[in-house]
Amino acid sequence: MAYFEDIKVGDRRELGSFTFTPELIKTFALQFDPQPFHLDEEAGRKSQFGGLAASGWHVAAVYMKLTVAALQRDMQESIARGEKPTASGPSPGFRELKWHKPVLAGDTLTFTSEVSEVRTLESRPQWGLIHAYNTGVNQRGELAFSFIAAVFKPRRPAT
Amino acid sequence: MAYFEDIKVGDRRELGSFTFTPELIKTFALQFDPQPFHLDEEAGRKSQFGGLAASGWHVAAVYMKLTVAALQRDMQESIARGEKPTASGPSPGFRELKWHKPVLAGDTLTFTSEVSEVRTLESRPQWGLIHAYNTGVNQRGELAFSFIAAVFKPRRPAT
Repeated sequence: MAYFEDIKVGDRRELGSFTFTPELIKTFALQFDPQPFHLDEEAGRKSQFGGLAASGWHVAAVYMKLTVAALQRDMQESIARGEKPTASGPSPGFRELKWHKPVLAGDTLTFTSEVSEVRTLESRPQWGLIHAYNTGVNQRGELAFSFIAAVFKPRRPAT
Repeated sequence: MAYFEDIKVGDRRELGSFTFTPELIKTFALQFDPQPFHLDEEAGRKSQFGGLAASGWHVAAVYMKLTVAALQRDMQESIARGEKPTASGPSPGFRELKWHKPVLAGDTLTFTSEVSEVRTLESRPQWGLIHAYNTGVNQRGELAFSFIAAVFKPRRPAT
Protein backbone atom coordinates (compact mmCIF):
# COMPACT_ATOMS: atom_id res chain seq x y z
CA MET A 1 0.00 0.00 0.00
CA ALA A 2 1.28 3.39 -0.94
CA TYR A 3 2.40 6.29 1.18
CA PHE A 4 1.03 9.71 0.37
CA GLU A 5 4.28 10.52 -1.48
CA ASP A 6 3.70 7.61 -3.91
CA ILE A 7 0.30 8.91 -5.07
CA LYS A 8 -0.13 11.45 -7.85
CA VAL A 9 -2.97 13.19 -9.66
CA GLY A 10 -4.21 11.04 -12.52
CA ASP A 11 -3.39 7.71 -10.85
CA ARG A 12 -6.26 5.46 -11.83
CA ARG A 13 -7.27 1.97 -10.85
CA GLU A 14 -10.14 -0.33 -11.57
CA LEU A 15 -11.58 -1.54 -8.27
CA GLY A 16 -13.65 -4.41 -9.69
CA SER A 17 -17.10 -5.27 -11.01
CA PHE A 18 -20.32 -6.34 -9.32
CA THR A 19 -23.60 -7.69 -10.69
CA PHE A 20 -26.74 -6.47 -8.91
CA THR A 21 -28.96 -9.58 -8.85
CA PRO A 22 -32.65 -9.28 -7.91
CA GLU A 23 -31.92 -11.18 -4.67
CA LEU A 24 -29.10 -8.83 -3.59
CA ILE A 25 -31.15 -5.74 -4.49
CA LYS A 26 -34.11 -6.94 -2.41
CA THR A 27 -31.99 -8.08 0.56
CA PHE A 28 -30.36 -4.64 0.88
CA ALA A 29 -33.67 -2.83 0.34
CA LEU A 30 -35.47 -4.88 3.02
CA GLN A 31 -32.84 -3.80 5.56
CA PHE A 32 -32.25 -0.17 4.58
CA ASP A 33 -34.46 1.19 1.81
CA PRO A 34 -37.79 -0.67 1.64
CA GLN A 35 -39.40 1.35 -1.14
CA PRO A 36 -41.58 -0.66 -3.59
CA PHE A 37 -39.34 -0.11 -6.65
CA HIS A 38 -36.38 -1.63 -4.73
CA LEU A 39 -38.40 -4.67 -3.54
CA ASP A 40 -40.68 -5.77 -6.34
CA GLU A 41 -40.17 -6.22 -10.10
CA GLU A 42 -43.70 -5.09 -11.02
CA ALA A 43 -43.50 -1.96 -8.83
CA GLY A 44 -40.10 -1.23 -10.39
CA ARG A 45 -41.46 -1.53 -13.93
CA LYS A 46 -44.25 0.93 -13.12
CA SER A 47 -41.82 3.41 -11.48
CA GLN A 48 -39.65 6.09 -13.09
CA PHE A 49 -36.78 3.56 -13.01
CA GLY A 50 -38.49 1.15 -15.42
CA GLY A 51 -37.46 -2.00 -13.54
CA LEU A 52 -36.39 -3.43 -10.19
CA ALA A 53 -33.77 -0.85 -9.15
CA ALA A 54 -30.97 -1.06 -6.59
CA SER A 55 -31.08 1.45 -3.73
CA GLY A 56 -28.57 4.23 -4.35
CA TRP A 57 -27.08 3.45 -0.94
CA HIS A 58 -26.62 -0.18 -2.02
CA VAL A 59 -24.57 1.06 -4.99
CA ALA A 60 -22.46 3.18 -2.61
CA ALA A 61 -21.97 0.24 -0.21
CA VAL A 62 -20.84 -1.99 -3.09
CA TYR A 63 -18.30 0.67 -4.11
CA MET A 64 -16.93 0.43 -0.53
CA LYS A 65 -16.89 -3.39 -0.64
CA LEU A 66 -14.77 -3.38 -3.82
CA THR A 67 -12.50 -0.65 -2.46
CA VAL A 68 -11.75 -2.61 0.71
CA ALA A 69 -11.06 -5.74 -1.37
CA ALA A 70 -8.64 -3.73 -3.56
CA LEU A 71 -6.88 -2.31 -0.46
CA GLN A 72 -6.55 -5.82 0.96
CA ARG A 73 -5.05 -7.11 -2.31
CA ASP A 74 -2.56 -4.21 -2.20
CA MET A 75 -1.63 -5.08 1.35
CA GLN A 76 -1.07 -8.75 0.54
CA GLU A 77 1.07 -7.88 -2.48
CA SER A 78 3.04 -5.45 -0.36
CA ILE A 79 3.68 -8.12 2.29
CA ALA A 80 4.61 -10.63 -0.45
CA ARG A 81 7.26 -8.15 -1.68
CA GLY A 82 8.65 -7.99 1.85
CA GLU A 83 7.49 -4.41 2.45
CA LYS A 84 5.88 -3.14 5.61
CA PRO A 85 2.26 -2.38 4.69
CA THR A 86 0.95 1.11 5.51
CA ALA A 87 -2.44 1.67 7.06
CA SER A 88 -4.96 3.74 5.14
CA GLY A 89 -6.42 6.61 7.12
CA PRO A 90 -10.03 7.46 7.78
CA SER A 91 -12.24 9.31 5.33
CA PRO A 92 -13.63 12.64 6.49
CA GLY A 93 -16.44 12.46 3.92
CA PHE A 94 -17.24 12.97 0.28
CA ARG A 95 -18.58 15.50 -2.18
CA GLU A 96 -20.96 15.54 -5.11
CA LEU A 97 -22.38 12.04 -4.97
CA LYS A 98 -24.55 11.50 -8.04
CA TRP A 99 -26.78 8.68 -9.19
CA HIS A 100 -26.74 9.41 -12.92
CA LYS A 101 -28.66 6.33 -14.13
CA PRO A 102 -30.76 3.69 -12.38
CA VAL A 103 -28.98 0.42 -11.57
CA LEU A 104 -31.47 -2.27 -12.56
CA ALA A 105 -31.56 -5.98 -11.71
CA GLY A 106 -28.93 -7.77 -13.81
CA ASP A 107 -26.77 -4.67 -14.35
CA THR A 108 -23.03 -5.05 -13.78
CA LEU A 109 -21.16 -1.96 -12.60
CA THR A 110 -17.40 -1.58 -12.93
CA PHE A 111 -15.97 0.82 -10.35
CA THR A 112 -12.87 2.95 -10.95
CA SER A 113 -11.03 5.43 -8.76
CA GLU A 114 -8.89 8.29 -10.14
CA VAL A 115 -6.83 10.62 -7.99
CA SER A 116 -7.97 14.21 -8.62
CA GLU A 117 -6.10 16.17 -5.91
CA VAL A 118 -3.28 15.59 -3.42
CA ARG A 119 -2.26 17.93 -0.66
CA THR A 120 -0.28 18.06 2.53
CA LEU A 121 -1.80 19.38 5.73
CA GLU A 122 -0.21 21.95 8.03
CA SER A 123 -2.41 20.71 10.85
CA ARG A 124 -1.58 16.99 10.47
CA PRO A 125 2.05 16.55 9.37
CA GLN A 126 1.84 12.73 9.47
CA TRP A 127 -0.99 12.64 6.93
CA GLY A 128 -1.71 13.82 3.41
CA LEU A 129 -5.19 14.33 2.00
CA ILE A 130 -6.14 12.65 -1.27
CA HIS A 131 -9.23 13.42 -3.33
CA ALA A 132 -10.36 10.78 -5.79
CA TYR A 133 -13.11 10.82 -8.42
CA ASN A 134 -14.85 7.46 -8.13
CA THR A 135 -17.19 6.14 -10.79
CA GLY A 136 -19.46 3.16 -11.45
CA VAL A 137 -20.06 2.42 -15.16
CA ASN A 138 -22.59 -0.16 -16.34
CA GLN A 139 -22.21 -2.91 -18.95
CA ARG A 140 -23.43 -0.50 -21.64
CA GLY A 141 -20.61 1.94 -20.82
CA GLU A 142 -22.99 4.43 -19.15
CA LEU A 143 -21.89 6.37 -16.07
CA ALA A 144 -24.36 5.35 -13.35
CA PHE A 145 -22.68 6.56 -10.14
CA SER A 146 -19.96 9.01 -9.17
CA PHE A 147 -18.63 10.93 -6.22
CA ILE A 148 -15.49 12.65 -4.99
CA ALA A 149 -14.00 10.97 -1.94
CA ALA A 150 -11.54 12.45 0.52
CA VAL A 151 -9.19 10.11 2.35
CA PHE A 152 -6.14 10.54 4.56
CA LYS A 153 -2.95 8.66 3.59
CA PRO A 154 0.13 8.38 5.80
CA ARG A 155 3.22 10.46 4.90
CA ARG A 156 6.42 8.49 4.34
CA PRO A 157 8.45 8.61 7.56
CA ALA A 158 11.77 10.46 7.34
CA THR A 159 14.65 7.93 7.10
CA MET B 1 -47.23 13.31 2.12
CA ALA B 2 -46.69 16.86 1.03
CA TYR B 3 -46.65 18.43 -2.39
CA PHE B 4 -43.74 20.71 -3.27
CA GLU B 5 -45.96 23.72 -2.53
CA ASP B 6 -46.45 22.57 1.11
CA ILE B 7 -42.72 22.53 1.87
CA LYS B 8 -40.78 25.59 3.01
CA VAL B 9 -37.24 26.45 4.04
CA GLY B 10 -36.74 25.75 7.75
CA ASP B 11 -39.24 22.86 7.91
CA ARG B 12 -37.62 20.40 10.25
CA ARG B 13 -38.48 16.90 11.33
CA GLU B 14 -36.95 14.25 13.49
CA LEU B 15 -36.71 11.03 11.50
CA GLY B 16 -36.03 8.69 14.43
CA SER B 17 -33.22 7.15 16.45
CA PHE B 18 -31.14 4.02 15.98
CA THR B 19 -28.70 2.21 18.28
CA PHE B 20 -25.64 0.73 16.58
CA THR B 21 -25.14 -2.57 18.40
CA PRO B 22 -21.90 -4.56 17.95
CA GLU B 23 -23.88 -7.24 16.07
CA LEU B 24 -25.39 -4.78 13.56
CA ILE B 25 -22.05 -3.02 13.03
CA LYS B 26 -20.30 -6.32 12.27
CA THR B 27 -23.10 -7.67 10.05
CA PHE B 28 -22.97 -4.60 7.81
CA ALA B 29 -19.16 -4.55 7.79
CA LEU B 30 -18.91 -8.21 6.79
CA GLN B 31 -21.06 -7.51 3.74
CA PHE B 32 -19.76 -4.11 2.64
CA ASP B 33 -16.81 -2.74 4.61
CA PRO B 34 -14.73 -5.55 6.16
CA GLN B 35 -12.00 -3.42 7.71
CA PRO B 36 -10.68 -4.65 11.10
CA PHE B 37 -11.97 -1.65 13.14
CA HIS B 38 -15.53 -2.36 11.86
CA LEU B 39 -15.34 -6.10 12.67
CA ASP B 40 -13.47 -6.54 15.92
CA GLU B 41 -13.61 -4.73 19.29
CA GLU B 42 -9.88 -5.06 19.96
CA ALA B 43 -8.89 -3.81 16.49
CA GLY B 44 -11.32 -0.92 16.98
CA ARG B 45 -9.80 0.03 20.32
CA LYS B 46 -6.32 0.11 18.77
CA SER B 47 -7.51 2.21 15.79
CA GLN B 48 -7.93 5.97 15.50
CA PHE B 49 -11.64 5.42 16.31
CA GLY B 50 -10.93 4.13 19.82
CA GLY B 51 -13.56 1.37 19.68
CA LEU B 52 -15.60 -0.89 17.42
CA ALA B 53 -16.84 1.67 14.86
CA ALA B 54 -19.75 1.52 12.42
CA SER B 55 -18.89 1.84 8.73
CA GLY B 56 -19.71 5.34 7.50
CA TRP B 57 -21.83 3.73 4.79
CA HIS B 58 -23.77 1.86 7.48
CA VAL B 59 -24.58 5.22 9.10
CA ALA B 60 -25.79 6.52 5.72
CA ALA B 61 -27.90 3.40 5.10
CA VAL B 62 -29.53 3.77 8.53
CA TYR B 63 -30.38 7.39 7.71
CA MET B 64 -32.18 6.03 4.59
CA LYS B 65 -33.97 3.35 6.63
CA LEU B 66 -35.39 5.94 9.04
CA THR B 67 -36.30 8.30 6.19
CA VAL B 68 -38.29 5.61 4.40
CA ALA B 69 -40.07 4.71 7.67
CA ALA B 70 -40.94 8.41 8.17
CA LEU B 71 -42.26 8.68 4.59
CA GLN B 72 -44.37 5.57 5.12
CA ARG B 73 -45.81 6.98 8.36
CA ASP B 74 -46.65 10.21 6.47
CA MET B 75 -48.38 8.22 3.75
CA GLN B 76 -50.47 6.22 6.23
CA GLU B 77 -51.50 9.38 8.09
CA SER B 78 -52.39 11.01 4.79
CA ILE B 79 -54.57 8.02 3.80
CA ALA B 80 -56.16 8.01 7.28
CA ARG B 81 -57.16 11.67 6.74
CA GLY B 82 -58.83 10.67 3.46
CA GLU B 83 -56.22 12.41 1.28
CA LYS B 84 -54.68 10.98 -1.84
CA PRO B 85 -51.01 10.32 -0.97
CA THR B 86 -48.38 11.83 -3.27
CA ALA B 87 -45.36 9.86 -4.42
CA SER B 88 -41.92 11.16 -3.51
CA GLY B 89 -39.61 11.55 -6.47
CA PRO B 90 -36.15 10.15 -6.99
CA SER B 91 -33.03 11.72 -5.54
CA PRO B 92 -30.42 12.92 -8.04
CA GLY B 93 -27.69 12.80 -5.40
CA PHE B 94 -26.09 14.38 -2.38
CA ARG B 95 -23.54 17.00 -1.45
CA GLU B 96 -21.04 17.45 1.35
CA LEU B 97 -21.46 14.19 3.24
CA LYS B 98 -19.36 14.35 6.40
CA TRP B 99 -18.55 11.82 9.08
CA HIS B 100 -17.72 14.25 11.88
CA LYS B 101 -17.30 11.75 14.73
CA PRO B 102 -16.93 7.98 14.88
CA VAL B 103 -20.12 6.03 15.62
CA LEU B 104 -19.05 3.43 18.17
CA ALA B 105 -20.81 0.27 19.36
CA GLY B 106 -23.64 1.26 21.69
CA ASP B 107 -24.02 4.79 20.29
CA THR B 108 -27.55 5.97 19.48
CA LEU B 109 -27.92 8.46 16.64
CA THR B 110 -30.98 10.66 16.23
CA PHE B 111 -31.48 11.76 12.63
CA THR B 112 -33.14 15.04 11.67
CA SER B 113 -33.90 16.61 8.30
CA GLU B 114 -34.25 20.37 7.75
CA VAL B 115 -35.28 21.94 4.45
CA SER B 116 -32.54 24.34 3.30
CA GLU B 117 -33.64 25.26 -0.23
CA VAL B 118 -36.74 24.88 -2.44
CA ARG B 119 -36.92 25.66 -6.12
CA THR B 120 -39.04 25.07 -9.18
CA LEU B 121 -37.54 23.68 -12.35
CA GLU B 122 -38.07 25.11 -15.84
CA SER B 123 -37.12 21.76 -17.32
CA ARG B 124 -39.50 19.65 -15.21
CA PRO B 125 -42.72 21.58 -14.54
CA GLN B 126 -44.34 18.67 -12.65
CA TRP B 127 -41.54 18.55 -10.07
CA GLY B 128 -39.88 20.87 -7.58
CA LEU B 129 -36.40 20.34 -6.17
CA ILE B 130 -35.88 20.33 -2.40
CA HIS B 131 -32.53 20.50 -0.62
CA ALA B 132 -32.43 19.31 2.98
CA TYR B 133 -29.63 19.39 5.54
CA ASN B 134 -29.71 15.99 7.24
CA THR B 135 -27.90 15.28 10.47
CA GLY B 136 -27.21 12.40 12.86
CA VAL B 137 -26.50 13.45 16.46
CA ASN B 138 -25.31 11.02 19.12
CA GLN B 139 -26.55 10.51 22.69
CA ARG B 140 -23.99 13.08 23.92
CA GLY B 141 -25.43 15.73 21.59
CA GLU B 142 -22.43 15.59 19.23
CA LEU B 143 -22.92 15.94 15.48
CA ALA B 144 -21.63 12.65 14.00
CA PHE B 145 -22.98 12.69 10.44
CA SER B 146 -24.38 15.26 8.00
CA PHE B 147 -25.06 15.77 4.35
CA ILE B 148 -27.18 17.86 2.00
CA ALA B 149 -29.73 15.81 0.09
CA ALA B 150 -31.51 16.78 -3.10
CA VAL B 151 -34.90 15.23 -3.79
CA PHE B 152 -37.68 15.85 -6.30
CA LYS B 153 -41.19 16.46 -4.94
CA PRO B 154 -44.34 16.57 -7.09
CA ARG B 155 -45.96 19.96 -7.79
CA ARG B 156 -49.59 20.31 -6.73
CA PRO B 157 -51.77 19.73 -9.80
CA ALA B 158 -53.79 22.74 -11.00
CA THR B 159 -57.43 22.34 -9.86
